[in-house]
Amino acid sequence: MKYRNLGKSGLRVSCLGLGTWVTFGGQISDEVAERLMTIAYESGVNLFDTAEVYAAGKAEVILGSIIKKKGWRRSSLVITTKLYWGGKAETERGLSRKHIIEEIVRAMTHVINQGMAMYWGTSRWSAMEIMEAYSVARQFNMIPPVCEQAEYHLFQREKVEVQLPELYHKIGVGAMTWSPLACGIISGKYGNGVPESSRASLKCYQWLKERIVSEEGRKQQNKLKDLSPIAERLGCTLPQLAVAWCLRNEGVSSVLLGSSTPEQLIENLGAIQAIVLPKMTSHVVNEIDNILRNKPYSKKDYRS
Amino acid sequence: MKYRNLGKSGLRVSCLGLGTWVTFGGQISDEVAERLMTIAYESGVNLFDTAEVYAAGKAEVILGSIIKKKGWRRSSLVITTKLYWGGKAETERGLSRKHIIEEIVRAMTHVINQGMAMYWGTSRWSAMEIMEAYSVARQFNMIPPVCEQAEYHLFQREKVEVQLPELYHKIGVGAMTWSPLACGIISGKYGNGVPESSRASLKCYQWLKERIVSEEGRKQQNKLKDLSPIAERLGCTLPQLAVAWCLRNEGVSSVLLGSSTPEQLIENLGAIQAIVLPKMTSHVVNEIDNILRNKPYSKKDYRS
Amino acid sequence: MKYRNLGKSGLRVSCLGLGTWVTFGGQISDEVAERLMTIAYESGVNLFDTAEVYAAGKAEVILGSIIKKKGWRRSSLVITTKLYWGGKAETERGLSRKHIIEEIVRAMTHVINQGMAMYWGTSRWSAMEIMEAYSVARQFNMIPPVCEQAEYHLFQREKVEVQLPELYHKIGVGAMTWSPLACGIISGKYGNGVPESSRASLKCYQWLKERIVSEEGRKQQNKLKDLSPIAERLGCTLPQLAVAWCLRNEGVSSVLLGSSTPEQLIENLGAIQAIVLPKMTSHVVNEIDNILRNKPYSKKDYRS
Amino acid sequence: MKYRNLGKSGLRVSCLGLGTWVTFGGQISDEVAERLMTIAYESGVNLFDTAEVYAAGKAEVILGSIIKKKGWRRSSLVITTKLYWGGKAETERGLSRKHIIEEIVRAMTHVINQGMAMYWGTSRWSAMEIMEAYSVARQFNMIPPVCEQAEYHLFQREKVEVQLPELYHKIGVGAMTWSPLACGIISGKYGNGVPESSRASLKCYQWLKERIVSEEGRKQQNKLKDLSPIAERLGCTLPQLAVAWCLRNEGVSSVLLGSSTPEQLIENLGAIQAIVLPKMTSHVVNEIDNILRNKPYSKKDYRS
Repeated sequence: MKYRNLGKSGLRVSCLGLGTWVTFGGQISDEVAERLMTIAYESGVNLFDTAEVYAAGKAEVILGSIIKKKGWRRSSLVITTKLYWGGKAETERGLSRKHIIEEIVRAMTHVINQGMAMYWGTSRWSAMEIMEAYSVARQFNMIPPVCEQAEYHLFQREKVEVQLPELYHKIGVGAMTWSPLACGIISGKYGNGVPESSRASLKCYQWLKERIVSEEGRKQQNKLKDLSPIAERLGCTLPQLAVAWCLRNEGVSSVLLGSSTPEQLIENLGAIQAIVLPKMTSHVVNEIDNILRNKPYSKKDYRS
Repeated sequence: MKYRNLGKSGLRVSCLGLGTWVTFGGQISDEVAERLMTIAYESGVNLFDTAEVYAAGKAEVILGSIIKKKGWRRSSLVITTKLYWGGKAETERGLSRKHIIEEIVRAMTHVINQGMAMYWGTSRWSAMEIMEAYSVARQFNMIPPVCEQAEYHLFQREKVEVQLPELYHKIGVGAMTWSPLACGIISGKYGNGVPESSRASLKCYQWLKERIVSEEGRKQQNKLKDLSPIAERLGCTLPQLAVAWCLRNEGVSSVLLGSSTPEQLIENLGAIQAIVLPKMTSHVVNEIDNILRNKPYSKKDYRS
Repeated sequence: MKYRNLGKSGLRVSCLGLGTWVTFGGQISDEVAERLMTIAYESGVNLFDTAEVYAAGKAEVILGSIIKKKGWRRSSLVITTKLYWGGKAETERGLSRKHIIEEIVRAMTHVINQGMAMYWGTSRWSAMEIMEAYSVARQFNMIPPVCEQAEYHLFQREKVEVQLPELYHKIGVGAMTWSPLACGIISGKYGNGVPESSRASLKCYQWLKERIVSEEGRKQQNKLKDLSPIAERLGCTLPQLAVAWCLRNEGVSSVLLGSSTPEQLIENLGAIQAIVLPKMTSHVVNEIDNILRNKPYSKKDYRS
Repeated sequence: MKYRNLGKSGLRVSCLGLGTWVTFGGQISDEVAERLMTIAYESGVNLFDTAEVYAAGKAEVILGSIIKKKGWRRSSLVITTKLYWGGKAETERGLSRKHIIEEIVRAMTHVINQGMAMYWGTSRWSAMEIMEAYSVARQFNMIPPVCEQAEYHLFQREKVEVQLPELYHKIGVGAMTWSPLACGIISGKYGNGVPESSRASLKCYQWLKERIVSEEGRKQQNKLKDLSPIAERLGCTLPQLAVAWCLRNEGVSSVLLGSSTPEQLIENLGAIQAIVLPKMTSHVVNEIDNILRNKPYSKKDYRS
């Protein structure tokens, strides 16, 4: 496993983390959850991501009981969780953003000062909101966030490739990305529509099915077909290529994997093996960019 | 129930709250207290107001034991209480207000940092004192107050309509108002003097009786008689009209009701129903203003 | 009993306090200690002064066990104690005073933030050291001291009458004074030398005896003889006159009494009775000044 | 024993401390460890230095159990320990030093605010890193470090004699030095190469052996031979001369001794006796400098 610092903080995280979204306490059994965590931990993964709301609190409980059962030292793990104060929508009805943000920064600083957490970060915040949280923290001598969790994959690049690098260079905030396979869109299994056993066929994932069968979705599947030869040439699978492609971005501290089966997890973890990630040369990356044709334009190149 | 943010904070309070002043532990029995709280809670009220000094501490105890008995989750409730450091009069004998205020802000910040409270506010402070508390909090990086509790009803408008809006816009302090029926003056029962069974006939409410029978008091009763047709036209009672009139002011986060019987409470809670509050159009409000003739003059109109 | 604010803080202290210096755990038995505290408490004294070093820690223990035994509520009492970090002499050997003072202010702020104390003050610090503690507290947003304990009696006036008023007006620091009878010199019992049963005859109070029989000491005894007629005229004893004289200074928040017998304590507490303190008119104070001839010169009159 | 303030802080440390590096939990038995600590404590040593990593945590445990067994009051001791956040090397891979340093200062401030420690200092940091920690602490109102632990002996003088005095004068950081005998090089036992029973003959101290037999090492041994007559003249041993030479520097708060036998410890503690340290006159110091020929050049003389 490779490790990177989370933003400019001193926290070292494995460049691949295990997410528990839509799986723990929901789609998969506790036994599978334990197998997945064991595979990840033994592969050197030290980052496990959960949230209060995942499976109505069950994801956090399952995660904790597995760690306890396995006897892994707490200090060897980085657990990220997410808290919400009431519905987001409420806070947007004409309220002053500055006050709300100050309140959140104050609460997070309190949580850290009480020893309940070591760091705090944001999830799905805009660059401007993060910048505001940072400046409020600086103004009132509170603790600024260290990372932002953002969606990042072959088909969604703008925020992670343009906005977060600037935040990283200015205020040290790192990127922890999720959905490297675009909710399974990049798994390759939707090349010929939506099979019955897939996630997109579930009733509550109607939105995913719609996205796949849309005009835009079909274009994406075509691009994936064009990327397949590259994966084959490198000797890896398409999902491995997609994960490795995320990691080729040095600005990404960790990519959260959300596998639902041991086989999938092992496949995805394979993305950092010698036969994949090191082959992400600028030549290969350019080749991929030529197929994707969605490289965001950035005035400043922080990664030159 | 409708909910509003308390000032510019992230705290969501029901726009009608239940006060325990002069009732809990005093005028009413514990059984009635429980019935009142249950009616309020089931109507969506999440704000309950008490104070250390109400009924010599008994109001706080009764409130707590009812919540425990009913099994309501603490996190679903907003409990406001009030603390005093010695008599107010003492602090005014030529002492430097700035030092006292700094001490209070420091103590409140300590209380919040210790996790004993989430927010703090003031009660019956002047706009200047609140501004001073805010600037002291900013100067020494402490936590500023989020709201002021102020008296507000048809016959007392200056502070809530002129001073607090300015504080809200400048420093985010919200208004939580009490006495929407002016200690019962607006109940309609004093139209023909003070009946024997009313609060104003109690010995310790001699001051209230005097206020009602005074020159000023009789003028108020006359205005109430003029308002009655409007209430009738809207299809509500006079107290409902009075409560809805308070709530028409968007700058008021919550109106604290201090009912002593279930019937009164249900009547007052009715003020937010479809047949009352939404009918508080600018036309109706103007009509009321023409009767009251006490609209305070404000240089700046923050509510245009 | 009369109460005053401690400096510009919100803390109300009785204008007479009970000191435990040289008595509790030393000169007097635990039974006498309890009787003294009971007399004081029942006279309205809410301020009890002790220190870690008094009687090698025993004074603090005795004080605590009496309060517990009597069942007095802790919140009804103001207990002042003193802590030392190593010998004072050490810190003066060419060390930077600023660093040491910052360390003390930081430690005291910590003690208050931990809830172990509510306020902190200094004892026997110079005006410049207090000013430095205040400015360090302001610079680093820590809690400034609220009072200085200083010696104050008919024969020692400079610090309390000239320096502390300036500190009070500039930074709100109040004066809590001790030794109102100048270690017994003003008791009247040394008018004809040092009697065998007195404190000054004890071996460890050799310095006191020397002070009394010195040239300066005899002059003081002569002044006391001249003050006796004034006490007689007012209808009080000389010690009562001396204590009342300290209290006539509005800048003194509290005068600590260090009586060793119930009779003495009752006599001293009598200084605030109607027949003594209110008679400290400017005429009487001038009369006393004419005898003492030691009124310190102050450029600014803060008490006009 | 002599005591000095640690930097400009109020903490008084014995000018000789006992280190547990390479000895406790490693080279020596628990019985010897206890004897060494007892000798040191009874000689007035109040400073004991350890670290989390020494002997994989065993050094800390042994130290603690001896203190408990002997019944020494915790408040009479100064225990210094060292913590690491992951490998140092990681933090140097192109990361922003400022962020990491801010994180360390924040963590140390937290540790002190939680009451887990009273002070914090650095070990083997560069002057620039210490200065940065200080300025970060000042900027965000956190607690600055009070001392730096640095290597200091006859053959390594630059940092302690040139850089740390400037830090002491500017920000009050004191010097706690270690390795006064240069890992045994100054013991005199390597004058004729490396004997079999010495530390340098151990396999894991290959680097030490190499240093001794190197060109530079032989020059050092020659200088030691030249210093012997001075030691003889003063009536002390060469190691005593070396320790006393460190202590002649008033900027050194404490010299940590790392003896492995009671005899060695007693010999080294002897350096502060009347027959050694007081004889470190400027004449003797000059004589030594003439032999060493390594006095670092400093623009400013803070010790004149």
